[in-house]
Amino acid sequence: MLSTYSYQQLFLFAKNIFLHIGCTETNALTAAKVLLSADLRGVDSHGIARLSGYVRLWEVNRVNANPTISIVHETPSTATVDGDKGLGLIVAPAAMQIAIGKAKNVGTGWVSVKNSNHFGIAGIHAMMALEHDMIGIAMTNASPLVAPTFSIERLLGTNPIAVAIPSGNEAPFVADFATTTAANGKLEILQRKNLDTPTGWVQTSTGEPSTSAAEVKNGGALLPLGGDKEHGSHKGYMLGSIVDIFSAILSGANYGPWVPPFPAYVPMPQNMPGEGIGHFFGVMRIDAFRPAADFKAHMDNWICRFKNAKTVAGETTVVIPGEPEAAIEIERMNNGIPIIGSVITDLKELAAKFQVTF
Amino acid sequence: MLSTYSYQQLFLFAKNIFLHIGCTETNALTAAKVLLSADLRGVDSHGIARLSGYVRLWEVNRVNANPTISIVHETPSTATVDGDKGLGLIVAPAAMQIAIGKAKNVGTGWVSVKNSNHFGIAGIHAMMALEHDMIGIAMTNASPLVAPTFSIERLLGTNPIAVAIPSGNEAPFVADFATTTAANGKLEILQRKNLDTPTGWVQTSTGEPSTSAAEVKNGGALLPLGGDKEHGSHKGYMLGSIVDIFSAILSGANYGPWVPPFPAYVPMPQNMPGEGIGHFFGVMRIDAFRPAADFKAHMDNWICRFKNAKTVAGETTVVIPGEPEAAIEIERMNNGIPIIGSVITDLKELAAKFQVTF
Repeated sequence: MLSTYSYQQLFLFAKNIFLHIGCTETNALTAAKVLLSADLRGVDSHGIARLSGYVRLWEVNRVNANPTISIVHETPSTATVDGDKGLGLIVAPAAMQIAIGKAKNVGTGWVSVKNSNHFGIAGIHAMMALEHDMIGIAMTNASPLVAPTFSIERLLGTNPIAVAIPSGNEAPFVADFATTTAANGKLEILQRKNLDTPTGWVQTSTGEPSTSAAEVKNGGALLPLGGDKEHGSHKGYMLGSIVDIFSAILSGANYGPWVPPFPAYVPMPQNMPGEGIGHFFGVMRIDAFRPAADFKAHMDNWICRFKNAKTVAGETTVVIPGEPEAAIEIERMNNGIPIIGSVITDLKELAAKFQVTF
Repeated sequence: MLSTYSYQQLFLFAKNIFLHIGCTETNALTAAKVLLSADLRGVDSHGIARLSGYVRLWEVNRVNANPTISIVHETPSTATVDGDKGLGLIVAPAAMQIAIGKAKNVGTGWVSVKNSNHFGIAGIHAMMALEHDMIGIAMTNASPLVAPTFSIERLLGTNPIAVAIPSGNEAPFVADFATTTAANGKLEILQRKNLDTPTGWVQTSTGEPSTSAAEVKNGGALLPLGGDKEHGSHKGYMLGSIVDIFSAILSGANYGPWVPPFPAYVPMPQNMPGEGIGHFFGVMRIDAFRPAADFKAHMDNWICRFKNAKTVAGETTVVIPGEPEAAIEIERMNNGIPIIGSVITDLKELAAKFQVTF
């Protein structure tokens, strides 16, 4: 059921497909690199498995393969960017680059983006800041699948937040998480295995607690981090809301239930209040606060203290955010990326459609 | 067991006590206003109930009543502030004012603070931005009571995050939440009532799940938002970590298990790596991204859509963050603030100690 492909093979295939839908060489390369970073880092749901989904969005004219990404409003530390219906995989790195430039000039840079599409994993964009000794922040809104606390309507996406923080000798701290109890990709995995979800992940279409992995498909909803009010779901709902507002109301993108769905076959919402989907990026230069060497020495101290904390029975270490993903990246770069059968079928169809080899 | 006092009476008493420990008139007024904002907004654990705690910190020379709050490092959009051991109740508004000034100049302002003390509720500081048509962000680290996922050691505080966002005709969006399943104040309330906690709030000192409201007192720990790994506690742990790093590693304050404890009788940690506790503040001018009127119209639309969503059985509305607190504020300003017996005893002792009336 699983076959393993080299990073190089998948990367070149994805780049080839992006070239075939009309991307420039540079943009195809960026899009393939961002897409494949998900597979490399073990977030299989957001990588090459979604390539055909992006192509279908292009087929229904929801993606512009050659966007003119532009700043429509700015101050020394901020910009509002129009993604011109481009792939989020391309728009997001361009917006992060603007934020990095502003941070170089005035200490920090903050960019809100409208008129974009899904941007892959948030973490890879946040990580662009690391090589500049800067903290990177990336977030995006997404198709409405989440019911706020007490709601039976799906009004928010899984709206992820990523924060990448430089360190010294230790691996950098990279947090990247959906603001729901569990991301939709985890439901899909359980569904394939015919397993139930834990409590607190989903509710039915009438708002009853459920453990069916098919619940979201059947009109139910994902739940905000916390699961229910007693366990703090109002906090997950607040986090998802903040991501939505920063990404879309600051920029002029669609928000809440009006965010365009990722699957191209799902009809667009009525009376959309904005343009495309929205992202938000932030970059802070470490030495805008204190010398980078001091900061990194204390980050290393922080990481070592947490990593070496006494653990509960059955666990050997407290996990530092980003470390497991960094380890998977090395492993998969060396030994290849396992791809499940249904995705291989999908990629073969794409290959046939565009008459490229796979 | 409950007696009700007017806002004015409690405010003047708190101000009087701050004057008696040596605060200037202006600082005493600010400290009392910030402290009482917790009682007004219904966060009883963080208001006048803590007045004697702040005084005890002053008594053991951990609080400087007359701090010289200074910028030790800055760029056009950032500052690192030394709180000079001042009350966080005074240091935080000063730092927010710096952030607001920078936002006026370059679009946003970001301030990391070291050498401070506990600052009351995060929300009131974030809300300082609202009258300027700016988004306000406030966070702080705090005494280590929280065990990261898989840890049995308490390495993080409840590390709250507050985000205040302007709206038009609707009440502003004000999120203010601990990054744990439940704040410590909620445990204290259950303890007084001899009730158990729900699952996922606390663990024992050896990392076993528990529902004892006395667990933290007995060496156990609060749990990050999510409760356990299966329910996303690694996300709450990441959030609490980000707050810790932004507040303390950017500024040079103490972090993780080295954050000074709020109770003055708890010994200070050994080998502390920084100065005092740390905060982090952010301010973004709305019109650094788009005209404020456009933003506010869409915020109103967002709020109305969420507020009017279909609810689960037994609930009448989806709650907009900040609305319940705004309603309590009006109610308590009109009808007074209920204070429990043990806090009244505490305040009477303070009154006797400083020979002021209560």
